[in-house]
Amino acid sequence: MQLYGTSLSLLTDLYQLTMAYAYWKSGLAEREAVFHLHFRKAPFNSGFTVACGLADAVAYIEQFRFVESDLEYLATLTGNDDKPLFEPAFLDYLKTLEFNCDVDAVPEGTPVFPYEPILRVTGPIVQCQILETALLNIINFQTLIATKAARICLAAQGEPVLEFGARRAQGFDGALSASRAAFIGGCTATSNVLAGKLLGIPVKGTHAHSWVMTFDEELEAFERYADTLPNNCVFLVDTYDTLQGVRHAIEVGKRLRTIGHEMVGVRLDSGDLAALSIDARILLDEAGFTGAKIFASNDLDETIIESLKTQGAKITVWGVGTRLVTGGDQCALGGVYKLSAIRHSESGAWQPRVKISEQIVKISNPGVQQIRRFYTKNEKGRRNIADIIFDESSPLPHDWQAVDQLNQLKRWPAPTDTLSEDLLMPIFRGGRRTVNLPTLSEIQLNTARQLEFFQRGVKRFVNPHFYPVGVEENLHKTKANLIDSARQKLTRET
Amino acid sequence: MQLYGTSLSLLTDLYQLTMAYAYWKSGLAEREAVFHLHFRKAPFNSGFTVACGLADAVAYIEQFRFVESDLEYLATLTGNDDKPLFEPAFLDYLKTLEFNCDVDAVPEGTPVFPYEPILRVTGPIVQCQILETALLNIINFQTLIATKAARICLAAQGEPVLEFGARRAQGFDGALSASRAAFIGGCTATSNVLAGKLLGIPVKGTHAHSWVMTFDEELEAFERYADTLPNNCVFLVDTYDTLQGVRHAIEVGKRLRTIGHEMVGVRLDSGDLAALSIDARILLDEAGFTGAKIFASNDLDETIIESLKTQGAKITVWGVGTRLVTGGDQCALGGVYKLSAIRHSESGAWQPRVKISEQIVKISNPGVQQIRRFYTKNEKGRRNIADIIFDESSPLPHDWQAVDQLNQLKRWPAPTDTLSEDLLMPIFRGGRRTVNLPTLSEIQLNTARQLEFFQRGVKRFVNPHFYPVGVEENLHKTKANLIDSARQKLTRET
Repeated sequence: MQLYGTSLSLLTDLYQLTMAYAYWKSGLAEREAVFHLHFRKAPFNSGFTVACGLADAVAYIEQFRFVESDLEYLATLTGNDDKPLFEPAFLDYLKTLEFNCDVDAVPEGTPVFPYEPILRVTGPIVQCQILETALLNIINFQTLIATKAARICLAAQGEPVLEFGARRAQGFDGALSASRAAFIGGCTATSNVLAGKLLGIPVKGTHAHSWVMTFDEELEAFERYADTLPNNCVFLVDTYDTLQGVRHAIEVGKRLRTIGHEMVGVRLDSGDLAALSIDARILLDEAGFTGAKIFASNDLDETIIESLKTQGAKITVWGVGTRLVTGGDQCALGGVYKLSAIRHSESGAWQPRVKISEQIVKISNPGVQQIRRFYTKNEKGRRNIADIIFDESSPLPHDWQAVDQLNQLKRWPAPTDTLSEDLLMPIFRGGRRTVNLPTLSEIQLNTARQLEFFQRGVKRFVNPHFYPVGVEENLHKTKANLIDSARQKLTRET
Repeated sequence: MQLYGTSLSLLTDLYQLTMAYAYWKSGLAEREAVFHLHFRKAPFNSGFTVACGLADAVAYIEQFRFVESDLEYLATLTGNDDKPLFEPAFLDYLKTLEFNCDVDAVPEGTPVFPYEPILRVTGPIVQCQILETALLNIINFQTLIATKAARICLAAQGEPVLEFGARRAQGFDGALSASRAAFIGGCTATSNVLAGKLLGIPVKGTHAHSWVMTFDEELEAFERYADTLPNNCVFLVDTYDTLQGVRHAIEVGKRLRTIGHEMVGVRLDSGDLAALSIDARILLDEAGFTGAKIFASNDLDETIIESLKTQGAKITVWGVGTRLVTGGDQCALGGVYKLSAIRHSESGAWQPRVKISEQIVKISNPGVQQIRRFYTKNEKGRRNIADIIFDESSPLPHDWQAVDQLNQLKRWPAPTDTLSEDLLMPIFRGGRRTVNLPTLSEIQLNTARQLEFFQRGVKRFVNPHFYPVGVEENLHKTKANLIDSARQKLTRET
């Protein structure tokens, strides 16, 4: 899809604009509101989720403004009476709209948990609202992929994971955003050259089956490739027969040595990867190529990598494509962006808001939320203990308690003798960015370091340990009261 | 991800460029080759797959050229000896590269089947190769989503399906491409305003829960919305209690009538959609709103819609998001792009090629392929009977037979007394586009009409009927011979 040279401000749901129109018309456009972005369920039944996408969200916000062609298009929209949806004065208002909200967000690469706010937007309700769709689009997807990548890298136990997914990604941006998020989650390189050019991610690649099929003989194909790129030789050995392919690679590897080059390794792309890698290793070692790496690809994910490891596979570099860049069996993080407080028109006090809904899982938290993460630190390192979600706009009581998120009958006291940090950091104030964002490599490092702070059980794939997350008791009471009074009102009405 | 203003020619896997380098260095860059794009398995266990994405593939090809910054970046890449991967003369060659291939493709919206070539590129092997990644990215994704949309629209039995997925799509282009493919598959509108502006797809939207939560009373929220947009009233009724919400909508609907407007309907977004829609219908009808529509959304897909219909749900408009724009339980079409023939350097004859691989399912078809679709036509309409894949470069025998794709022991004779059409149509000749592409609405119409030509069994969700696809016997023999001789060579070598 050709997105270049286009204003992306209309990458939003129409209802954001009809609501904006109604806010404006009702004199509410500038009423200050707070929205939080959170998800209700971790992807992949994971014990953790890696927050990702903030830099792109920031870039989107910074370029946000309606251009002439956006407004001309909006002027053509009509309602069910075939009359215009929007009056010209509203389109003039959109034209002058300038972003002046506050944004707070969890740094990219931080592990987060269900119902925790990973982004908070405070400001005129129209602006908060119009940004919803793009913010969700960016953060839902990149958080999904960074989490998948982190899991795959955990399964690879420190061995390099290469992201090979561009051809199966969901659109060009699906590919590029996935390359970014995969790198943040721990991948060492990508096959996507544009991700190398634009984002500085290391790129890797050698040859495909078509190269081998161009020649009458596989051996000739390897030789000719090595003639051109003696410093980049990973031979794909399964075009005809994998082990015969390994023998051909060894032959060329020996020739390479005579001209001072070392074959990097071989790649397996089909068949029984466990057995073939073991046999390939034997052939390589016997021929004196003990340093040659064995790359493998073919619909890999964390489950298959873990299984191959259990089977004793001798794979040393993992090429992961489709299931990494799309999320595989889970294709979306169901992140939502909910209004949670609005300024009272007269008193100026925050009025908490909660969506009740027919489904308990869809009930949101009210207030101006912050996450506090408690941890201990000693010579063995840092260990995270628990998170609480609390309302920043009211003082936290000294002896506060948390209501457990998974079991609301369970209360736990504030951890004592621990350190703590608040996860939401200021990003924009009054529409101006107040921080420099970290580089991609810094974010990748942050992810790895932050994951280290959690106990192993949180990171296992089967029945992960649930890291404790609580809602501060006063916030919980506010929420319960809001729900009660809404229900009571319903009862009175019916 | 900010893709605008950027050359997208590097949206390719690095191995395409290292292979291009090796072809160029080996004097093979201009050798004519044929590549086909096909998939091995229909998505969603579907009985059919809707080809989609061609227009974007054409746009990509037409803009394709390496710009200065692309080449500057490529010059920075190094091999395992830290020396440059590419020599300057090769980068100069890339700079002058101009696309001059032939491209043939199945028109968008055409139902296709596993192993059928949906796109064919013929020309200098370097060019065919470099385009692979982008072509697969575009066509894999849009074909996946058009197929999902067609299935969802079949489940809705002619009732409108609205695409609401932007917030859960995989990147901006994941959203926009999905809006396009969903429209082609039969959706009537999208919530994505940018898809309206850029692609002309009708856009729909009214208000979210946040609008209701802004006010102290739901009734007030509906009234204030109706004040601004009396010609666009679909009230979201589940913020607090769905049926109470319907009563509030009715109250505002009555007021709207006094000023000459008609409420469009109500939207349910949580809870038991079957039961709530039935109760809502009763309330609306009793209040005289028999024409009011009931919209429903909440993680819908073809299976849930079919189930809701079975339960007698009174939903009349279906809002489908996440599972439509991402594919839901299947996140990628596993399309591949395989070399299938190469010109002999001396005789100029096509030499067929086949990839053998360790897995039978990954073995590709050789030759210069075309699909012939056989059908009957009478006063009741057209009925498709069978497809055959054959080699266009050799004459089709008069009394040809097809080898069934699903059971290679089964042969069937050429259908007689039938009509037929060849599905791959010329798109580019010598790098120049030779056809005008249809509009999006024409493609949407084509999809619906083409699906009509298949018997119902092909379109059901559970155990669909397998539409017969065969490989012409001579082509099958060529393939078998290629496999045999490769295996014999292997036996001699080992």
